[in-house]
Amino acid sequence: MSARSTYNTPIPTQWVGPLVFKGDLVEGEVSVPLATFESPLWPSTARGAGVSRHAGGIQVTLVDERMTRSIAVRAKSAAAAYAAWQRIEAQTETVADLIAGTSRFARLIKLNRQIAGNLLFIRIECATGDASGHNMVTKAAEAVLDWILADQPDLDYSSISGNFCIDKKASAVNGLLGRGKYVIAEMDIPVRLLKRMLRTTPEQMVLLNHEKNYLGGNLAGSLRSANAHFANMLLAFYLATGQDAANIIEGSQGTVQCEDRGDSLYFACTLPNLIVGSVGSGKGNPQVEEHLEKMGCKDERNPGDNARRLAGICAGVVLCGELSLLAAQTNPGELVRTHMEMER
Amino acid sequence: MSARSTYNTPIPTQWVGPLVFKGDLVEGEVSVPLATFESPLWPSTARGAGVSRHAGGIQVTLVDERMTRSIAVRAKSAAAAYAAWQRIEAQTETVADLIAGTSRFARLIKLNRQIAGNLLFIRIECATGDASGHNMVTKAAEAVLDWILADQPDLDYSSISGNFCIDKKASAVNGLLGRGKYVIAEMDIPVRLLKRMLRTTPEQMVLLNHEKNYLGGNLAGSLRSANAHFANMLLAFYLATGQDAANIIEGSQGTVQCEDRGDSLYFACTLPNLIVGSVGSGKGNPQVEEHLEKMGCKDERNPGDNARRLAGICAGVVLCGELSLLAAQTNPGELVRTHMEMER
Amino acid sequence: MSARSTYNTPIPTQWVGPLVFKGDLVEGEVSVPLATFESPLWPSTARGAGVSRHAGGIQVTLVDERMTRSIAVRAKSAAAAYAAWQRIEAQTETVADLIAGTSRFARLIKLNRQIAGNLLFIRIECATGDASGHNMVTKAAEAVLDWILADQPDLDYSSISGNFCIDKKASAVNGLLGRGKYVIAEMDIPVRLLKRMLRTTPEQMVLLNHEKNYLGGNLAGSLRSANAHFANMLLAFYLATGQDAANIIEGSQGTVQCEDRGDSLYFACTLPNLIVGSVGSGKGNPQVEEHLEKMGCKDERNPGDNARRLAGICAGVVLCGELSLLAAQTNPGELVRTHMEMER
Amino acid sequence: MSARSTYNTPIPTQWVGPLVFKGDLVEGEVSVPLATFESPLWPSTARGAGVSRHAGGIQVTLVDERMTRSIAVRAKSAAAAYAAWQRIEAQTETVADLIAGTSRFARLIKLNRQIAGNLLFIRIECATGDASGHNMVTKAAEAVLDWILADQPDLDYSSISGNFCIDKKASAVNGLLGRGKYVIAEMDIPVRLLKRMLRTTPEQMVLLNHEKNYLGGNLAGSLRSANAHFANMLLAFYLATGQDAANIIEGSQGTVQCEDRGDSLYFACTLPNLIVGSVGSGKGNPQVEEHLEKMGCKDERNPGDNARRLAGICAGVVLCGELSLLAAQTNPGELVRTHMEMER
Repeated sequence: MSARSTYNTPIPTQWVGPLVFKGDLVEGEVSVPLATFESPLWPSTARGAGVSRHAGGIQVTLVDERMTRSIAVRAKSAAAAYAAWQRIEAQTETVADLIAGTSRFARLIKLNRQIAGNLLFIRIECATGDASGHNMVTKAAEAVLDWILADQPDLDYSSISGNFCIDKKASAVNGLLGRGKYVIAEMDIPVRLLKRMLRTTPEQMVLLNHEKNYLGGNLAGSLRSANAHFANMLLAFYLATGQDAANIIEGSQGTVQCEDRGDSLYFACTLPNLIVGSVGSGKGNPQVEEHLEKMGCKDERNPGDNARRLAGICAGVVLCGELSLLAAQTNPGELVRTHMEMER
Repeated sequence: MSARSTYNTPIPTQWVGPLVFKGDLVEGEVSVPLATFESPLWPSTARGAGVSRHAGGIQVTLVDERMTRSIAVRAKSAAAAYAAWQRIEAQTETVADLIAGTSRFARLIKLNRQIAGNLLFIRIECATGDASGHNMVTKAAEAVLDWILADQPDLDYSSISGNFCIDKKASAVNGLLGRGKYVIAEMDIPVRLLKRMLRTTPEQMVLLNHEKNYLGGNLAGSLRSANAHFANMLLAFYLATGQDAANIIEGSQGTVQCEDRGDSLYFACTLPNLIVGSVGSGKGNPQVEEHLEKMGCKDERNPGDNARRLAGICAGVVLCGELSLLAAQTNPGELVRTHMEMER
Repeated sequence: MSARSTYNTPIPTQWVGPLVFKGDLVEGEVSVPLATFESPLWPSTARGAGVSRHAGGIQVTLVDERMTRSIAVRAKSAAAAYAAWQRIEAQTETVADLIAGTSRFARLIKLNRQIAGNLLFIRIECATGDASGHNMVTKAAEAVLDWILADQPDLDYSSISGNFCIDKKASAVNGLLGRGKYVIAEMDIPVRLLKRMLRTTPEQMVLLNHEKNYLGGNLAGSLRSANAHFANMLLAFYLATGQDAANIIEGSQGTVQCEDRGDSLYFACTLPNLIVGSVGSGKGNPQVEEHLEKMGCKDERNPGDNARRLAGICAGVVLCGELSLLAAQTNPGELVRTHMEMER
Repeated sequence: MSARSTYNTPIPTQWVGPLVFKGDLVEGEVSVPLATFESPLWPSTARGAGVSRHAGGIQVTLVDERMTRSIAVRAKSAAAAYAAWQRIEAQTETVADLIAGTSRFARLIKLNRQIAGNLLFIRIECATGDASGHNMVTKAAEAVLDWILADQPDLDYSSISGNFCIDKKASAVNGLLGRGKYVIAEMDIPVRLLKRMLRTTPEQMVLLNHEKNYLGGNLAGSLRSANAHFANMLLAFYLATGQDAANIIEGSQGTVQCEDRGDSLYFACTLPNLIVGSVGSGKGNPQVEEHLEKMGCKDERNPGDNARRLAGICAGVVLCGELSLLAAQTNPGELVRTHMEMER
């Protein structure tokens, strides 16, 4: 392969915010960079950020985190595949040591398995520090695979990455078994604020969320997705922070909750598969580095804490953009008008 | 909303190729720009492009194209919702005229519907010229919605975008009813070439495709997805060409075909939801414009032809990257080694 | 294969009702037989039937009907597969005539297609009179397949039933393209009645429907399903009426709507894939015949009308059982207590 | 609710077999009763059984077993929902004791959770002895729910069965987290036998399995399903053995493996969600009891062993029917002819 010259494609970027956060994971004011060709995203997200400043802040909760890679091996029979699995499971400690030896940060959390006929798929799930961890688990997977094939010579290689991981594909496994950060962002919005800043009501939001995100999504044959446009905010934030943005595919599979609390709207965005890192490929980019630094995600912290902060901020951005668009859609006509104005 | 300054986030970009194409949609040599933080993607795709030069070229076929937006209205009852639908369907000509009046290029192809209880979802499907068409169909949808609510005052507004569209969410509807370009890229690769350039065989490719993409994907609970990493190529190509890259979500939902033809491997990538445009937001970016021009997608052509050419080229890139990665995965160890080397 | 003796497995059966219907499809009182090993289903459905008698009746609406079978053929290339499809589509009239020649009732409604690589899947969609139509469309498919392979000798046989039909599997296609009767059952239930007969309120029902059927279902990775137990009523009704009860798989994929109308609860069950017939295999069974006759589904009517009536009644039964269980689940403790009592 | 008279709907039934099994779970000859209105199922399954007698037998492997019910509670916030979950998880022992107190057989295996906004769904997974366990886990769930609401009074009741279980709905969760028996049936069939008894070859079977079950199923938007007609055999076996046959919905979600081993075809059916019991409602039916006894599933064995044997036999029946139909479909024309002959 011949040497190729590398140059840059510039993606228009604006800082939006500040968003206000409360709670342990992220606290206080944070502005965020959004890189996107879709310029209406900036004022739309900014509108949500404005609400966060008046409503007392967005709370973010981290429920889980892991990165995964699945390997696949072929046995002579299902009985043999199951026996192979049992032998591997009994040596989980060995596997954990093996993985710990491949990286300073990779630590085995769990081995999951599926057996289909004579094929055994093992999903290796690891903690990966501040990195999103794709390469870390790939190295871990290779070590585990080599060891298995040496330890059990009757097994044949099928794949180093058997799609039970699963990376960047629309599926259910990542939401159910975990991949990336599992983060929830939530905010309580007083009725008067909702009326003044977003021209909507709790009743309208609850109804739209049910009819559009849940029922409409259901009719479309959606899989673990009930939202309006998580993907837009994720893409812009991922690009500005040097993430592997193809992970918006699993990232977009999340849900919105609207609860009418009488004098306020409870609004929450759940993102079970937010794949982000504050180190790793893409983060050396000077512009990206500056973005991360300004958001306080390059500080001296315990391993993993910068990435967790980044995930919390990202979930907050998603909440702001989702809130703004849904509110706009409760008012017929506003959506198109807004977009048309933006683009002039 | 206060004035914000816009600057650029630079995404590393390389030209890859040339890829060789044959057939009507795209013909001859085309190099492609790929903008990505994941640098191993360049040599990987380049390897596939090399195969295309020796194997006689990639053939691309366009099966369908449309852009969609769904509106939702609420009736008093299911019976009333069904009657409302029948009344709308009977006036399809009026709807078509209405839509044609909203844009020079938008033309109604079909109205699809779902009724759930008293809610009626109408999926407006349009031809949109050289644009991907999101804004075009949104304007069309607003016109249709206004007309429906005026024509049938018993109906209530539910949503201007009822998620039966569906935009940027993991679902089945876009593959089954169509959204974006439906493109297939295929290539016949002689066994000797496969061996020399990709170090693999038809038997190995057929087996890996079945076990990883289909069976592994199935176990992961995938939805209309059977591929290794369509998403990576789509993202890089979308960013370099000013697309709304969040559409890689539906774009990634496609399938790979491997057929062992004895003296060759038949290899095909099917992309039923390739959403691309050669005009529209993002395409004014000078770097993007240059990319489009160099690929011959800004030429004087009939409306839609530049976008169709772009879709064909994109499908070719996906094929090159998919071929290269799958071949690498037939050889245990190669994948990790390659990635590690790339990143040094 | 040696001669085998046939005997009967008895399934416990009770008549439930009468349900009260209003509207064109079904009108007035109808009692229904339910064959099931799960005896609590009878009183539970009966409770819903009781509500129908006091609330003015269940309205049923038929939105669509068809039965499908997909064939698959293999071409040399995707380009050739697409050309083959175009040639077939251009001769749709011929295909329609061919199908009409295979049966007195089968009539072509539409041909749908998917092309993946060099494979062409054609979904043959037919009206099938009073039969559910599995065998009718299989015969039609064989005729069409023979004709295609004769008309286009370059194509190879892949499958007479290519799973794009799709029969008795969890999928999205049947809901989106149609298979079986698409029926909606709905009822408006006054608040006082809801309170007295079901011990619940509109608010509780709306909340439970959203949190359990939609959100809980979403988290489970459900596909086009948002209900509590459509499957139970479908199975019992299918067994009592001689249906091919394995079709409860697609039948179960439907949605529930709850709308709080202040002084009443609007409650609707949407069943897009209700596969039933009043004639065909299973219907000769004397017990089944008696069941069908008593429900007025063996009367002298226009072809298809008995099956449509049967579908309407079935949707009503589903509504009664769903309403009763959901109401019970709004009251913690009631569900288990009820079941335990039932089984003594 | 007034007293209703119970009578029987007779389902035509035949004994098929004997099937031959080898291995630990089931060994030797077993004939099976199939209750169905679809009479062609008997000779079709019998053909597969014949192959099992000549090919050395079907091996069945049990990978996992559990029954599940999910409860849902509502917290003030996501942070509170997560704290509630942590408090529950820390008291898993208490939960286990609680569950053990509700039944002689129910034993907690695992608690799984999903948090969406302020809602906490807990999936209670139990061993249930020889029963399929629906009622057992419902009782367990009620006890756990009561305890949680008492232990954490800030939580509100949402649902005793929150659809994250999930019962009788098309979803991904049961395959990924487990529900019912996870059983694999497999057989190696010599080429000559395949030719003589099924008129097919390994190549044809491998190709059809890929193109129909995997690719066709994928295009249809299938979820964790890649088979031709698991549902038919499951329904007939479930009815004959007093199962809650609506569980064919999750039961049908399984995969077929065909491997061309040169001188034989490796054929496997994987059923991750086979819900069966040898005791419980439906099993008191004298006809059902006789069926269970004749298959040796009412013998004196350790708790759970009769149900496991029953699951193994059921998987074997599914394999026989699947093998026979797939083989028939490799030969165009055979399918329809066979069905037509059967029904005369």
